[in-house]
Amino acid sequence: MVADGLEHGGRLGAARRRFPGAPEPFLDLSTGINPIPWPVPPLPPTAFARLPEPEEEAALRAAAATAYGAVSPEMVAAVPGTQLLIQLLPRLFPRPALRVLSPTYAEHAACWRAAGTAVEEVAEFGALEGAGDRGGAALLCNPNNPDGRRFPPGALRALAERMAARGGLLVVDEAFAELEPDMPGLAGLLPHPALILLRSFGKSHGLAGLRLGFALAAPERAAAIRAALGPWAVSGPAIAIGRAALADAAWREAAALRLARDAARLDALLEGAGLRVLGGTRLFRLAEGDAAHWHDRLGRAGILVRRFSARPRWLRFGLPGDEAAWARLSNALI
Amino acid sequence: MVADGLEHGGRLGAARRRFPGAPEPFLDLSTGINPIPWPVPPLPPTAFARLPEPEEEAALRAAAATAYGAVSPEMVAAVPGTQLLIQLLPRLFPRPALRVLSPTYAEHAACWRAAGTAVEEVAEFGALEGAGDRGGAALLCNPNNPDGRRFPPGALRALAERMAARGGLLVVDEAFAELEPDMPGLAGLLPHPALILLRSFGKSHGLAGLRLGFALAAPERAAAIRAALGPWAVSGPAIAIGRAALADAAWREAAALRLARDAARLDALLEGAGLRVLGGTRLFRLAEGDAAHWHDRLGRAGILVRRFSARPRWLRFGLPGDEAAWARLSNALI
Repeated sequence: MVADGLEHGGRLGAARRRFPGAPEPFLDLSTGINPIPWPVPPLPPTAFARLPEPEEEAALRAAAATAYGAVSPEMVAAVPGTQLLIQLLPRLFPRPALRVLSPTYAEHAACWRAAGTAVEEVAEFGALEGAGDRGGAALLCNPNNPDGRRFPPGALRALAERMAARGGLLVVDEAFAELEPDMPGLAGLLPHPALILLRSFGKSHGLAGLRLGFALAAPERAAAIRAALGPWAVSGPAIAIGRAALADAAWREAAALRLARDAARLDALLEGAGLRVLGGTRLFRLAEGDAAHWHDRLGRAGILVRRFSARPRWLRFGLPGDEAAWARLSNALI
Repeated sequence: MVADGLEHGGRLGAARRRFPGAPEPFLDLSTGINPIPWPVPPLPPTAFARLPEPEEEAALRAAAATAYGAVSPEMVAAVPGTQLLIQLLPRLFPRPALRVLSPTYAEHAACWRAAGTAVEEVAEFGALEGAGDRGGAALLCNPNNPDGRRFPPGALRALAERMAARGGLLVVDEAFAELEPDMPGLAGLLPHPALILLRSFGKSHGLAGLRLGFALAAPERAAAIRAALGPWAVSGPAIAIGRAALADAAWREAAALRLARDAARLDALLEGAGLRVLGGTRLFRLAEGDAAHWHDRLGRAGILVRRFSARPRWLRFGLPGDEAAWARLSNALI
């Protein structure tokens, strides 16, 4: 059984039904979420009880602007998870056509298609630019999921300029940029007439259940996103945790270093098992080989990894979060 | 200074700037949120860290269906706060025209207007029905905010039928129904071709910062709302807390009894101060009198209550949550 194109990682219930004899608890390596969360302190009860104050939400946006390199909080919209943003962008900024650099996170193309946009998946960066004709949109993930492909800032800047010159829109999903070396992202280009950037707090900080993400764009676009979501779109706990965590540069630096070591360790394990590592980021690795065999074998060992319906020899591995998890993976890969 | 029509309660920052000498902490009686929250237990770290599983979200919908009296979880969409639902309904179910029973929560009319709908505010229940002509929509809050007006189930059922017969849509915001006596809401009528119901978990359970609300509708409409929000719209903490709290009928019953006593106590205080109580629910009371005087006097005493730009003699009071709060209010009303 190969996962459907829109099947997501992180489906433990389905994995349990498929591998009923597997040892519990399941080790979920099917997502690209940091396995070691930012340490959440006890939250004040008011974070749950009260409606967040506008000043608190503004402080969260200010922390995001600083962390991501945008000049002003006016260029930031905080959202309850980037997925909702992916759902809303095609409705808020409708375009006749979209080109998506593929393969990539499948929800982008699916949501634009659902909104009636003519979506074309292209394999080459150079093919994105043509999307700007007739005011179309282009979309890419940088670094890309699942292959970790990255695009140089100069090329992205040039693409953004050419899209702007044609009245086009360029969406860059930077969900996996935060812990990568030398990937400042494009927020420094804002305000920019063509650019919308996406950031995923939950992935980088290991707090995906909190539901917190950001759009970065020119002030009018960011304001339009905020207006569409209304006041109080982001929860009190997400505001409290996001403000503190985004300001914690020391944690981010340490996490990036640790994950770099862990990614190299995972690559060595995968190659030792005869899989070929194609790429990835510090939050996941993409490997090629007998994916059906390994998915099944790992599943029976209670380890969930990600397959891709359109690429039957690909497997994506998230990073183990502790030595027990490393040992389980290592034993299962022998 | 009279609050703008879309000014909300719960703006402590603005109150602090307006009443700089007021004693701290401010006592916020400007909202209709239960002042005594459902007791949140320590949450498992996974609620913050992991993406919620589809089975967990389905269990939340099942708990909501049971609590609100819908036959099936298929008729439920869980959302990160009802406000987002209010923002999305006009985009998801566009209608040429809407009649709103007014005065009421101003965001409804504002959001439909922003989506291009011709909105007419009507004062009489009987005027809603005509909205169904040409497939229009009608909207009311039951009980209503801020006056606590209620509408008999028989009349609502008849209105729903007549709207359905004309191809119309009837949105009933039941945000304040949960703790009222003899207000089962209309969920028992579902699936119904005209009806969409809104429920606010945060208000009734005193957990507005958590961001959790529900739409109840025929399965196709509920599914359309879920599809528009995408997977993981509701946070892990909201799912964990919502599931447990919605199943806690004993807490709900005790809260309703306590709030009934507190509402009567508040009415007596307000009448003792020469204000006339016009109505309300167990989560807020609406009073008439020299609103400018009392808003200012209470503000200088560090107590925030709600004014209404279109009704300069109205004041809405939330309920104090403890004896210290009662004493402060009582002293300020002398």
